[in-house]
Amino acid sequence: MDTRTGLPVVGMVGGGQLARMTHQAATALGQSLRVLAASPDDGAALVAADTMIGHHTDVEALLRFAKGCDVVTFDHEHVPEEHIRALVAQGVTVYPGADALRHAQDKRVMRERLTRLGVPVPAWRAVTDEADVEAFLATHGPAVAKATTGGYDGRGVWFIGTGADAAPLLERGLDLIVEERVPLRRELSAVVARSPWGQAAAYPVVQTVQRDGICVEVLAPAPGLDEDQATRAQQLAIRVASELDVVGLLAVELFERADGEILVNELAMRPHNSGHWTIEGARTSQFEQHLRAVLDYPLGDTGLTAPAVAMANVLGGRDSGMSIDERLHHLFADDPAARVHLYGKQFRPGRKLGHVTVLGTDMDEVRQRARRAARWLSDGGDDASGPHD
Amino acid sequence: MDTRTGLPVVGMVGGGQLARMTHQAATALGQSLRVLAASPDDGAALVAADTMIGHHTDVEALLRFAKGCDVVTFDHEHVPEEHIRALVAQGVTVYPGADALRHAQDKRVMRERLTRLGVPVPAWRAVTDEADVEAFLATHGPAVAKATTGGYDGRGVWFIGTGADAAPLLERGLDLIVEERVPLRRELSAVVARSPWGQAAAYPVVQTVQRDGICVEVLAPAPGLDEDQATRAQQLAIRVASELDVVGLLAVELFERADGEILVNELAMRPHNSGHWTIEGARTSQFEQHLRAVLDYPLGDTGLTAPAVAMANVLGGRDSGMSIDERLHHLFADDPAARVHLYGKQFRPGRKLGHVTVLGTDMDEVRQRARRAARWLSDGGDDASGPHD
Repeated sequence: MDTRTGLPVVGMVGGGQLARMTHQAATALGQSLRVLAASPDDGAALVAADTMIGHHTDVEALLRFAKGCDVVTFDHEHVPEEHIRALVAQGVTVYPGADALRHAQDKRVMRERLTRLGVPVPAWRAVTDEADVEAFLATHGPAVAKATTGGYDGRGVWFIGTGADAAPLLERGLDLIVEERVPLRRELSAVVARSPWGQAAAYPVVQTVQRDGICVEVLAPAPGLDEDQATRAQQLAIRVASELDVVGLLAVELFERADGEILVNELAMRPHNSGHWTIEGARTSQFEQHLRAVLDYPLGDTGLTAPAVAMANVLGGRDSGMSIDERLHHLFADDPAARVHLYGKQFRPGRKLGHVTVLGTDMDEVRQRARRAARWLSDGGDDASGPHD
Repeated sequence: MDTRTGLPVVGMVGGGQLARMTHQAATALGQSLRVLAASPDDGAALVAADTMIGHHTDVEALLRFAKGCDVVTFDHEHVPEEHIRALVAQGVTVYPGADALRHAQDKRVMRERLTRLGVPVPAWRAVTDEADVEAFLATHGPAVAKATTGGYDGRGVWFIGTGADAAPLLERGLDLIVEERVPLRRELSAVVARSPWGQAAAYPVVQTVQRDGICVEVLAPAPGLDEDQATRAQQLAIRVASELDVVGLLAVELFERADGEILVNELAMRPHNSGHWTIEGARTSQFEQHLRAVLDYPLGDTGLTAPAVAMANVLGGRDSGMSIDERLHHLFADDPAARVHLYGKQFRPGRKLGHVTVLGTDMDEVRQRARRAARWLSDGGDDASGPHD
């Protein structure tokens, strides 16, 4: 507890934009998020008063960081399992716990567990050599190879048509699984929160739009998703959270197959890009919800604040020579109701620099506005071939 | 400019809840608010990474603080005018400027100016002795004496019925004005923002409910206020902002007289308690709007996000022995959609510790919910004689 305020101290390992936005939510709850940032220039380190510089792979740094925290949680999945267990051995409360988190750290562990639970997932298998890959391709056709650990935002994923395509990956000693290429209608995401006490709350199911494996847009609620299907997806996410004993947020990334069937793609156990829209678009933001969950506070209302909410990521685009500050001026002039979130990062092509959310009543309209706003910030709005055209 | 982000640095003098909430808004804009706090335990100092400890009456501290700021602005009105002029003499951009700010610092200066402008204000006069007071009372009946400087939240205001009532105040050497006791229907507030370029944006006019001179509730939009009257109040506030050359936010506290006439009570040139509801209740919060104004960004949309918004202040109530953390649990369980803002302050009876906002469609309902939520936080909800019954 923070004796200055009488309120708890949540420590978040990792100083990226998720910690940055969680700090904003913590501030409203009377707290100040304690952040373990790898660098003083990390997005959260730039804004949070209670920042410690240290690396998430350094167990001594983690133990020092955890002193005085009521609960330790994560901005990413990269803390080694043995370090989490070392924290717990020292009496630190860590949410999500190591047994849950490994399902977000290792795709093979996740696939095995979900398969055992009877949760629908793409056809998959672990592979150790070209013959394994060939056998899978023979049954399922062109496939996707995934590194079991370390991949995100399109990294660690390869499309393969032959065993030979996988050979260089196997030669690098990567732990691989292969999965069928699901005939997709689209991708969805079901974000839920679960508290230690077992309360769960599900956000409306959203559609996510990816480009080159990176999320570029989120539409809430998922347009045209029928209520039964939405409820089933929420129930599925709550069931996964419960079976895996997740505490905090769980984002279940879903494939909606061309035939309407819903399959689980990935799991993330933290605030998630598919939930950024909740800052303005839901009664309780995912960041506050994550804090409420890990602190075992009753969870907040997950209802929409508007009939249609669109979020577009701001990815570093073509360098048009226009400063980010100037771009922001133009965007604000263009759309005074667009909600901007910039993460305090240096510009780099393709990098997630921020996001924009637009609320309204017509999904097509808010989607166009969110795209347009994000493009102003990405590249000054003048690059027709940019990531948001 | 912050070279790490390419975005501007706004410095705010004063580390209270207004700076704390402005920091949350700055974070979304990719910035980190620079705060000059009198104490490391100030609400904003607890959360903002870029905090300097120093007093707003120390001109050397102000000059050190301003180095590297693109613009300096304020969490309160207490910076001496000569210090602001010293900053400007050193090339610092300060908004609002000293010539505007004196109208929020000195009630006599404000009353004189508004009277000259023909803006409707209560009957008033400056008084230096008992005879002045008697003369005013003879014409206007029972009156209100106000210290020209230093008063807020009911301090510096006295009801007087005779010249003798004012004698002890005059003997203390206070600069006083006296004003008629306006026959009130209710109090209103018109918050506007104005940029250096001259753009202005008005929020919906709200009703404020005071108890013992302290704002306890704000209802947005002001229930039953007809559109013409609301527009006139907005125009009045924009006119005052323009005539006084205010840059940033201007809150115009208004009396709605029993006969429907609207008079100006007070001016504040910063984010204001009557605008806290905008965090969730308007498309652009007053905190972001203040930043946009002082940075000469185009101003944000001031529209409502829901038909009825109620804000209730959390004032330290009876000490029921229940910790603030426990109170928060109960409130969250009671109303999962209530939006809580706690300022990180130590509990003290009557102190503004936070506020709660509730959004909905029925004003009576959201008002009851906001009151109830604030009472949970004020005193554990069990004190029927508390400030929010």
